Amino acid sequence: MKVTLSALDTSESSFMPLVVIEFAQDVKEETKEWLKNRIIAPKKDGDNNDDFLTMAECQFIIKHELENLRAKDEKMIPGYPQAKLYPGKSLLRRLLTSGIVIQVFPLHDNEALKKLEDTWYARFALKYQPIDNIRGYFGETIALYFGFLEYFTFALIPMAVIGLPYYLFVWEDYDKYVIFASFNLIWSTVILEVWKRGCANMTYRWGTLLMKRKFEEPRPGFHGVLGINSITGKEEPLYPSYKRQLRIYLVSLPFVCLCLYFSLYVMMIYFDLEVWALGLHENSGSEWTSVLLYVPSIIYAVVIEIMNRLYRYAAEFLTSWENHRLESAYQNHLILKVLVFNFLNCFASLFYIAFVLKDMKLLRQSLATLLITSQILNQIVESLLPYWLQRKHGVRVKRKVQALKVDIDATLYEQVILEKEMGTYLGTFDDYLELFLQFGYVSLFSCVYPLAAAFAVLNNFTEVNSDALKMCRVFKRPFSEPSASIGVWQLAFETMSVISVVTNCALIGMSPQVNAIFPESKADLILIVVAVEHSLLALKFILAFAIPDKPRHIQMKLARLEFESLEALKQQQMKLVTENLKEEPKESGKEKAT
Amino acid sequence: MKVTLSALDTSESSFMPLVVIEFAQDVKEETKEWLKNRIIAPKKDGDNNDDFLTMAECQFIIKHELENLRAKDEKMIPGYPQAKLYPGKSLLRRLLTSGIVIQVFPLHDNEALKKLEDTWYARFALKYQPIDNIRGYFGETIALYFGFLEYFTFALIPMAVIGLPYYLFVWEDYDKYVIFASFNLIWSTVILEVWKRGCANMTYRWGTLLMKRKFEEPRPGFHGVLGINSITGKEEPLYPSYKRQLRIYLVSLPFVCLCLYFSLYVMMIYFDLEVWALGLHENSGSEWTSVLLYVPSIIYAVVIEIMNRLYRYAAEFLTSWENHRLESAYQNHLILKVLVFNFLNCFASLFYIAFVLKDMKLLRQSLATLLITSQILNQIVESLLPYWLQRKHGVRVKRKVQALKVDIDATLYEQVILEKEMGTYLGTFDDYLELFLQFGYVSLFSCVYPLAAAFAVLNNFTEVNSDALKMCRVFKRPFSEPSASIGVWQLAFETMSVISVVTNCALIGMSPQVNAIFPESKADLILIVVAVEHSLLALKFILAFAIPDKPRHIQMKLARLEFESLEALKQQQMKLVTENLKEEPKESGKEKAT
Repeated sequence: MKVTLSALDTSESSFMPLVVIEFAQDVKEETKEWLKNRIIAPKKDGDNNDDFLTMAECQFIIKHELENLRAKDEKMIPGYPQAKLYPGKSLLRRLLTSGIVIQVFPLHDNEALKKLEDTWYARFALKYQPIDNIRGYFGETIALYFGFLEYFTFALIPMAVIGLPYYLFVWEDYDKYVIFASFNLIWSTVILEVWKRGCANMTYRWGTLLMKRKFEEPRPGFHGVLGINSITGKEEPLYPSYKRQLRIYLVSLPFVCLCLYFSLYVMMIYFDLEVWALGLHENSGSEWTSVLLYVPSIIYAVVIEIMNRLYRYAAEFLTSWENHRLESAYQNHLILKVLVFNFLNCFASLFYIAFVLKDMKLLRQSLATLLITSQILNQIVESLLPYWLQRKHGVRVKRKVQALKVDIDATLYEQVILEKEMGTYLGTFDDYLELFLQFGYVSLFSCVYPLAAAFAVLNNFTEVNSDALKMCRVFKRPFSEPSASIGVWQLAFETMSVISVVTNCALIGMSPQVNAIFPESKADLILIVVAVEHSLLALKFILAFAIPDKPRHIQMKLARLEFESLEALKQQQMKLVTENLKEEPKESGKEKAT
Repeated sequence: MKVTLSALDTSESSFMPLVVIEFAQDVKEETKEWLKNRIIAPKKDGDNNDDFLTMAECQFIIKHELENLRAKDEKMIPGYPQAKLYPGKSLLRRLLTSGIVIQVFPLHDNEALKKLEDTWYARFALKYQPIDNIRGYFGETIALYFGFLEYFTFALIPMAVIGLPYYLFVWEDYDKYVIFASFNLIWSTVILEVWKRGCANMTYRWGTLLMKRKFEEPRPGFHGVLGINSITGKEEPLYPSYKRQLRIYLVSLPFVCLCLYFSLYVMMIYFDLEVWALGLHENSGSEWTSVLLYVPSIIYAVVIEIMNRLYRYAAEFLTSWENHRLESAYQNHLILKVLVFNFLNCFASLFYIAFVLKDMKLLRQSLATLLITSQILNQIVESLLPYWLQRKHGVRVKRKVQALKVDIDATLYEQVILEKEMGTYLGTFDDYLELFLQFGYVSLFSCVYPLAAAFAVLNNFTEVNSDALKMCRVFKRPFSEPSASIGVWQLAFETMSVISVVTNCALIGMSPQVNAIFPESKADLILIVVAVEHSLLALKFILAFAIPDKPRHIQMKLARLEFESLEALKQQQMKLVTENLKEEPKESGKEKAT
């Protein structure tokens, strides 16, 4: 096996490897040479901003530059005539799809990583995470996830504390449940609003709060006819927006609805199976058939998992086909699609138990089982298992490297070989999804199972550590992504809290204690519950309206920035006008003097 | 009576009177002289932008300058030692409160006004209003009102057309009512969303879409300690925001709630009176007591009117006391306060009839009576009556002027005398409020009275003309106000359309035809109605979310502007950095050369 670490050939002693491009084994030299020239070409006149930027930012810039290397006059990739190019096509994307480049990933900085680990999760102590350091190493998107995870955990503590006595003293009075549910609903609105302020605070400090989506470069998968962007005046591929809208509303939307219908249909089959198994067991009464009782649940769980995976692929394909110009728009559409489906898959059976079967005991039991098992499984599958596999693999690589006895810096070579085999972190999506579903378990049926918040808090305290471990040791270092907020997740969490108002009011209205108060008229009871629900929803919207999204000092600073930039524009235009009024000779004379 | 039109003393032939300041009769000369100097002082170095600006904009600038003349070292108004001044106090406000200046108002431009009238309402033809001309003459705020009035009228036509056959063919099938109500709800959401886009289109053309609230100068009534505005760096009074919040939440909010409670209490007394009068009439059975039946309604109508007026004063006092920095914030808080109270006063009795008495026939009758009488009364009181009085007054003034035989340009003098006696237009508030209440009558109980939309359309076609007449002939010309949208009214109309979903669903659920379908279980019926209502609300929010607030071409232009202004800021800062890097001598050398 021939090893070349071409960057190492340059004899700079302060060289700091940031990003690795892994070629396929038999790639031709001319291709490598051409790509190297294309990458270096625009850098010649670049300025050196080393001290200004965090390492994560440097890596982001490199990734951005690589992804925006676009074909100009090349008709194909040199050395690979079958890999066709056309003007505007992203080179990296063609290299990846042709199998010439296997992957591009940034390298860990072992020294910085150790420092980060020390302050983050190495010592199991109760303290705030070093969010700014995380941002420096992994970038804003991941730092925001950990910030949200921490904030959310602390915000759940009051709920957990209030929920505990319900379990300890086995409180079953409906009025106490009403108090708990009401507190829960108001609290979840307040914490989501306050998070927006905290988030604005953080991203203002990081300089990403004012990130303009419109000035983002198009995402690498975006294709279209090369033209002039009418906003920035730069050359880039263009794709008409109405075509995208047609694809979204005429294809994606009906497909999602069909999938949702299918998921509900599968759930109904599951409940039918349950009834059938129960009937079979009761008819025969033997030991053998009692095992059969678990079969429908197991089949359903497996089918749900398969459906989730299949749907995820379909959603990714569809969203990619919608051809969004910006990475953020692509992400938002993908998240919305997956979210709706996952929500239905996870909670449809609970809704069915709660509102069709009306079996509160079964509901509490299913909720507890689902919440606890999903949390335990997640932690094992997500972090501990890959970590263990990684460790074993690491020892193997070390042996291999020692056997090879290469004459270059062994540790760097070892690091590249080790990290290129690590799993790829696919973004914060799954982590947020987990939190989102947890929020659903905690809030949707909170008046039936007040203990859920306590379990969620316990889980999240370890989740912080296992997620941190995952980021630092299990996965390849991900490219950093700047972001201004948690984006569409804010909306998702807010929608969940609105739905939970409806479900909790319905559950309280269905409880036998409340029904006992209105023995003669069920209609009156429902009317009162609906009235209370409407008032709570109104209160939620008023609260969301009354709490400003950004803290006052951030508002002031943003206003100042806007004022200054508009003043600058004014001055620039004024100067242009006065300069145009001057005669040409005067103008050139001034230039000479300067 | 001594007449001085001091502006006329300047012998400019092209002089064009824009704004009148009316002093009290016995004001000292030194005071006039001082004020004149203070007004002229900052103008010396001003530039002349006559051709750039519409007349409305010129008048707005003059008003703005007058209102922002603030005391610096003067301790009192010269000639009036009792009229104390302190640094930062608005001079004009002190002059007005001391009774030295009676009023400040802009003059009509009779030529332009006649042209405007010709294209606007002089010929009773069905055509679009000349919104851009209205904006040029009266400013953006008033033009937006007329734009909204026109848009709203056209948007109501489909509702009116669909509602007519219900009246003509006396359709009473519940399924037809359901169709009408559903159409109504979706339609009202769509028209409000589409208005936002139309409004953005207009204000973009006028250049007010991007108006920054933060860069507005403080409103004249605003007081505080003189300091440096941290955003603009200019000197102006400052008032801590937390104090304002305390005043809003600890005083204003409880007061409003108390008033609402009182209004409901009065309504209950009214219904008690009604029952008492009915009982009295039935007991006696005489002719005399049948007249008594109308007494409670009359008393209630008078009391409502009195309460509305008293509350309006209280709301204005409270909002002024809250000491908002910006005129827009002041207006928003005032509108919210008055809106909530007026909504309750107008609709509480209808709600009571609909949902407590459950008398649909009475509801339809009350609704029709309220809608039609309020519309007729409004048109008479608002425009025709003042116009008639104005005409009579005009003739008297002409005679007076002819009797005086002054030696200056009689028409201008006549115009000033005539216009200073005209009523003052108090802003678009009452006009919007009328539309808002009309929208309530049309949408809140639309499934009970589908004809409401037709009456509203008829009313609005004449309302456009009577409002135009009012603006042009009845009131003093108002100072123009720039604005970016109809502001808090958008929110008010949207809230109304949300409430109307709830009321319409409830009304349909209560109809005997629907109840006949579920004869055995009322609870099932209510559950179905609630489910439908929730789906409709969800659909509304999804629609509002899916329809972009600004048309695509406006979005593009705004993005371009933002991009350019940020680029300009970048370049300016870059230049500052490079200039600072240069040595001093070089710098001055360059200046000499320029």
